[in-house]
Amino acid sequence: MNWFEMSLMARRGVAGGREGRRHTLTIADHREFPYVYGPYAEPVLEVEPGAVVTVETHDAFEGRIRSENDRPSEILNFPYLNPQSGPIAVRGAEKGDCLAVRIRSIRPRGEQPVGTTCLIPEFGGLVATGNTALLHPPLPEKVKKVRVDEDGVYWSDRITLPYQPFIGTIGTSPEIEAISSLQPDYYGGNMDLPDMAPGAIAYFPVNRPGALLHLGDCHAVQGDGEICGVALEMPATVELQVDLVKDHAIAWPRLETGDFLMTIGSARPLEDAARIAYRELVRWVAAETGMPEDEAYLLLTMCGRVRLGNMVDPKYTVGAAIPRAYMR
Amino acid sequence: MNWFEMSLMARRGVAGGREGRRHTLTIADHREFPYVYGPYAEPVLEVEPGAVVTVETHDAFEGRIRSENDRPSEILNFPYLNPQSGPIAVRGAEKGDCLAVRIRSIRPRGEQPVGTTCLIPEFGGLVATGNTALLHPPLPEKVKKVRVDEDGVYWSDRITLPYQPFIGTIGTSPEIEAISSLQPDYYGGNMDLPDMAPGAIAYFPVNRPGALLHLGDCHAVQGDGEICGVALEMPATVELQVDLVKDHAIAWPRLETGDFLMTIGSARPLEDAARIAYRELVRWVAAETGMPEDEAYLLLTMCGRVRLGNMVDPKYTVGAAIPRAYMR
Amino acid sequence: MNWFEMSLMARRGVAGGREGRRHTLTIADHREFPYVYGPYAEPVLEVEPGAVVTVETHDAFEGRIRSENDRPSEILNFPYLNPQSGPIAVRGAEKGDCLAVRIRSIRPRGEQPVGTTCLIPEFGGLVATGNTALLHPPLPEKVKKVRVDEDGVYWSDRITLPYQPFIGTIGTSPEIEAISSLQPDYYGGNMDLPDMAPGAIAYFPVNRPGALLHLGDCHAVQGDGEICGVALEMPATVELQVDLVKDHAIAWPRLETGDFLMTIGSARPLEDAARIAYRELVRWVAAETGMPEDEAYLLLTMCGRVRLGNMVDPKYTVGAAIPRAYMR
Amino acid sequence: MNWFEMSLMARRGVAGGREGRRHTLTIADHREFPYVYGPYAEPVLEVEPGAVVTVETHDAFEGRIRSENDRPSEILNFPYLNPQSGPIAVRGAEKGDCLAVRIRSIRPRGEQPVGTTCLIPEFGGLVATGNTALLHPPLPEKVKKVRVDEDGVYWSDRITLPYQPFIGTIGTSPEIEAISSLQPDYYGGNMDLPDMAPGAIAYFPVNRPGALLHLGDCHAVQGDGEICGVALEMPATVELQVDLVKDHAIAWPRLETGDFLMTIGSARPLEDAARIAYRELVRWVAAETGMPEDEAYLLLTMCGRVRLGNMVDPKYTVGAAIPRAYMR
Repeated sequence: MNWFEMSLMARRGVAGGREGRRHTLTIADHREFPYVYGPYAEPVLEVEPGAVVTVETHDAFEGRIRSENDRPSEILNFPYLNPQSGPIAVRGAEKGDCLAVRIRSIRPRGEQPVGTTCLIPEFGGLVATGNTALLHPPLPEKVKKVRVDEDGVYWSDRITLPYQPFIGTIGTSPEIEAISSLQPDYYGGNMDLPDMAPGAIAYFPVNRPGALLHLGDCHAVQGDGEICGVALEMPATVELQVDLVKDHAIAWPRLETGDFLMTIGSARPLEDAARIAYRELVRWVAAETGMPEDEAYLLLTMCGRVRLGNMVDPKYTVGAAIPRAYMR
Repeated sequence: MNWFEMSLMARRGVAGGREGRRHTLTIADHREFPYVYGPYAEPVLEVEPGAVVTVETHDAFEGRIRSENDRPSEILNFPYLNPQSGPIAVRGAEKGDCLAVRIRSIRPRGEQPVGTTCLIPEFGGLVATGNTALLHPPLPEKVKKVRVDEDGVYWSDRITLPYQPFIGTIGTSPEIEAISSLQPDYYGGNMDLPDMAPGAIAYFPVNRPGALLHLGDCHAVQGDGEICGVALEMPATVELQVDLVKDHAIAWPRLETGDFLMTIGSARPLEDAARIAYRELVRWVAAETGMPEDEAYLLLTMCGRVRLGNMVDPKYTVGAAIPRAYMR
Repeated sequence: MNWFEMSLMARRGVAGGREGRRHTLTIADHREFPYVYGPYAEPVLEVEPGAVVTVETHDAFEGRIRSENDRPSEILNFPYLNPQSGPIAVRGAEKGDCLAVRIRSIRPRGEQPVGTTCLIPEFGGLVATGNTALLHPPLPEKVKKVRVDEDGVYWSDRITLPYQPFIGTIGTSPEIEAISSLQPDYYGGNMDLPDMAPGAIAYFPVNRPGALLHLGDCHAVQGDGEICGVALEMPATVELQVDLVKDHAIAWPRLETGDFLMTIGSARPLEDAARIAYRELVRWVAAETGMPEDEAYLLLTMCGRVRLGNMVDPKYTVGAAIPRAYMR
Repeated sequence: MNWFEMSLMARRGVAGGREGRRHTLTIADHREFPYVYGPYAEPVLEVEPGAVVTVETHDAFEGRIRSENDRPSEILNFPYLNPQSGPIAVRGAEKGDCLAVRIRSIRPRGEQPVGTTCLIPEFGGLVATGNTALLHPPLPEKVKKVRVDEDGVYWSDRITLPYQPFIGTIGTSPEIEAISSLQPDYYGGNMDLPDMAPGAIAYFPVNRPGALLHLGDCHAVQGDGEICGVALEMPATVELQVDLVKDHAIAWPRLETGDFLMTIGSARPLEDAARIAYRELVRWVAAETGMPEDEAYLLLTMCGRVRLGNMVDPKYTVGAAIPRAYMR
C-alpha cells in the first residue's frame, strides 16, 4: 500500500485524499498582499476540501531587490515584508479541525536570475539583532542574484547547488491575533523548514472559520537554520491539494512524508522549539501506536531526527521526526 | 527644580507637561474589550495631548474568578484573557512620535475581596508550559482571593503585604499586527513591570495614527518575575495624564521617575530582554549626556540597575535603569 | 532580638556564631594562586569553626593592568585569570555540611588608583563572545583606572559613585571537578553578586573534607549584570568569620542579611538561573515556615525580589530574595 | 583520490595518516577511571602519532544497571558517572597542536543484553532538571535492557533499530580545569554526537603536553538530541588511529568524513551551540577555500547541515556541516 493511503489526509480527510476541483490564485488576483497571518483580511479565494490550487507567490522581498547593487536597508520597508498569497478560505473549516495541505509542486517563476539572497543589517543568526541587541555596528550589506531552474541553483562558476524547493511561510490564521508573516508560531507561518517540500502533507490547526490559508516565501534551496537570515528566495508557482480533517485539534503543525512523521515547534530559546516538537511527537507516536508516553519517549531517544528550520526569525523552528518504519 | 520639569514629557511634550481637559473611560463605555494590541478595533475615546483620563480597568480574568473554589482551567477561555480598556486615540499622534503617559494614581475598584491570584495549569515560571514543553502533568490549580485597600494587601492572618499598585499591561498599537494582550513587546503590552506605577512617566513608540493607547491588568502588588504567572490581580481605576512628543522615535518603552531613567526590553531568552534594555539605556545615556557609547557602557557596568518584570509571559520583560544622579 | 541571633549561622553553627581565633592570609602566604575551584591544590591555611580570618586578595587581573594605555588582550593570559586566595580548609567540614561565611569588612588595598575596569575583546554582555559567537569584529579595547577609598569611587570629574564593596568570587571546592575561577556554579565561584557584601552571611555546600574556601575578585562597586564584563576591580583586604553547619546539605549558595534571605542560582540561559534561585527559595521558605510549597510559590510571586549578579560569565547568576518580614 | 588522502590528518599529521604501532588499553589496565577531563590524573598509556589503539570502554553506568528492576536513583552515585578510559598521552603533543583521532571500529562488548537505557529523575530534555528547575515531582524511573549486536538493536518484538554505534564522550584535557565527563565543551567531552562514528576523523585542540585523550560512553544507536538523556548505552571495544597536527590550533572540535566537514559547538542556550558551530564552520570554509567570510556565510546559508548531538547535558551540542562537494 502506498504511504499516501495511510496518511491522515487520506484516511480522515473530508475528501478522503481525492482530488477535487482545480483553482488558480495569481499575483494579479490580489489587490493587496497580507503581511500578517490573521483574521482581519478578506479571503481572496474560497475552495472546498479536495481542491487542487495553483498559487503564484512573490519572493520575500516582493521582487524589489533587483540587482546586486541594491541596498536592502534602503529598499525594504519593515513591516511590509514577506507578502503572502491568500488568505484562502476552506469551506466547512471550523475551530478544532485540522487543515491538510499536500504540496504537489513548486516551480520558479519570472525572469532570470530568479533567485535572491542577501545580508541585511541586524538580521541573521551570526550577527547582533534587535533581540540579541549588542553594541557592534552591523556587518556590510550584500546582495547576490542567482539563476535557478528545476535542474539546479547556479551559485557560482564552481558551485551548483541542488534545486530543493520548499515553502518558507505557510499556515492558517490565529483566532484573534494578526501576526507578522516574518514570524512562525503554532499556526505555521515563517517556519523556513526545508521539509515543507513537494511530496509532503502538512497539517495546521484551524482556529477560525474557513481556516484562512496563507502562503508565500518559497525557497529554491536552504541550509539548516537559514543562518544568514535569507535563503535562496524566489517567486514561485505552487500546486497544493487541500483537505480538511474534522474535529482533529492539533496544537502545532505536523507533516507526513513517505519516510517520516514530523512535528514542528517554534519558540525561543532554541531548546524550547525542540521541546515543543519532541513533546508533540511523543504524544503523536503514543496516540497512533498505543504505546505509553514513556515508551514513546524512550523510543524517540533512539530514533528521533531533528531538522533545524530557521534560527533567525522572531521564533526559531525545529522539526522532530520519527521514521515511518518505527510507528508500530 | 522638580524632576518633572526636567522630564522629556515636560520639556518636549506638545502640552509641555501641563494638564488639559479631563476625560473618563468606564467599563460601561466599552461594547467589547480588546484582547489584542492592534489597529483593527475602533477607538472608544479620543483625547488631545495634555488630557487627564480616568480609566476603569477589569482584572486580567475579566472578573470571572469569583471564589477560591473556582477552577481557572474551566473558567478561562483562551485567548479571551486580559481584557484591555481602550483603545484611546491621541489627537495628532503619528508614526515616529512618542506617547508620554504619566501615571497619577491607581485605586482598587469593586467589592472585596478585590484581589485574585491563582495557579493555572501549564502557566508560570516554575512549571512546564506550552513553550517549555515537558512531559510532567500540571501542578494542581489553586485560587486565592485577597482583600486589598490602599493601605495594604491582607494576604493572611500573619502577613500583610504593602499596597504597591502598578499597571501590568499598557502600550500602543503595533503598525499592522494585532498581538495578544498576554504578550509584551516593543510597543509595551503585558510587561508586568512593577515600576509602571504612580509617579512614573512611561513612553511608548507611536506606530499608528492616534497611537491607540490600551491598558489593563492592574496589580495591587507583585514580586520580581511574577513567578507563578499571576500577580495580585485587581479591577482598578487609573488616572493618567497623556502627552505627545513629536518626531521622537524610540524603539522600546522607556520610563522616568524622580529617581531613575529606565529602558524596557521584552524577549526570550531572558538575557535578550536584558540586552535590549541595556543597549537602549546605553544609547539613551549617550544621547542625553553626550558621552561616547563605550563610556556609557562602562558607567552602566558600575551603576546600572535591573528590574525583572515578568518571567512568565510569551516574552520576558526586563527594565534597566540608571540613577538620575549619574545622568551628567 | 538582633537578626544575627536568628541566623542559621548563630542558631546552628558549630561555633554558634561566636568569634574564635584570628588568622591572617596574605598575598605573600601564597606560593601560587589557584585559578580553579577544586580539590587538587593544597590548602594554604586551616582554621576552625568560629575563626575570624583576614584575607588579602588580588584584583581579577592579578594587578597586571597598570595604566590606561595597557591593552588587556596583550596582558591577560587566559586561563590564568581571577587568582583566588586560599584554599582555606575548615576543620571538621565534610560532604553534606554547609559552610557559613560572615563578611565583616572589605577594604581597598594598595596604591592609587586602586580601581580598574576595562573593555576586553569578545567579553561582556553587549558584545559577541566565545559563546554568543558572531561574525562581528570585536569593539575597541579600553582601560579605565579609578581612585577608590572607603568614602567613594571617583569615577570622573562629574561623577562619584558610592563605595559598595563586595566579593565577586567566593565558594567551596567541587567534589572532583576543578573549575575555572571565571565561572560560577552550585559551589559559588564567580557570581559577581553585589549582595555578597559586608553584613551578609553566605552559605555554601561542603563537597570535600575541609570545604576548601576560595575567594578573590573584590569589587568597589558594580551595577546589576556587570554588563561590560568587568566591575570596578580592586585588590582588597577582607575580614571573614567562618562557621560550619553540620549535616545541612544545600544545593546552591544562600545568603542572609538583616533585610532578606536570598538563594543564588547560576546557569544559562538567564531564566534557568532565576528558576534555580526561585525554586531553592520556595523550598527554603517552605522548610523554615512550614507552609506548603504551593503557598510559598504564591507568596513569592507577590514579594520576591530578584538581583541580577553577572550576565557575562560562563554561567549567569541570579539571586532571589524574600524580605525577612514575610518569613512567617 | 580517496577522501582520506585529502583529510587534514593525512595531509598534515606527523604520521601522515599512516598506521604505526598497535596498542591495547583494557578495562583491567585501569586502576581507577577518570570521571573528569583534566590534567590531574596520570596517563595510563603513552602512544606515538600513528598509533592504532584498541580501547575497552565501560558503559556510562560502569555496568551497574543490570536489570530492568534496578532503580537508577539508588544505583548511580553522582558525580562518579560516565567513567572514561585513559587518559592516553600522545608523544610530542603540545598546546597549540591539534589531535587527530580516526575512528576505525566500535564493537559491543560483554554479556547480553549489552544495551541499557533508562529514565533518570531530574534528567532529560523533556523533564524538569537541576537547571530548568521546576516544582514538578520527577517522572517515574524506568530501565530498559536491550540485546545489541553488530547487525541490530533488538528494541522490541516489533522494532529492530539499526546498529549505528558512536563514541558519546571523547576529547582532550583542558589546560588547568578538570571537568565532569558528563559535560561537553571546547575540548570535546560528553557531546553525544552520532557523527562521532566509525569512518570519521575527529580533531581536538591540545591544551596540555601529551594531549591526554579520554574516551568512553559508547552508544549502539541514538536519536538526535538524546532526548531522554540516556542513549542505548553499551560497553564497547573501540579501535582508534591517532595522529598529531603540529601548530594547528583549533578552538572547538572538528570532524571529517567522506561526505562532509563538521564543526562542533557546545553551549546553552541551544542557539549558542549552533552559533559556535556555524562560526567555526564559516572560518574553516573561508580558510580552506580562500573565499571571504561573508561569502562562506552566504554559502552555508544555502547548504549547511545541522546535527543536534545532545540536548540534555550541562551544555548542549550541535554539529554544523558542509558537504565536501561545496568545499571549493
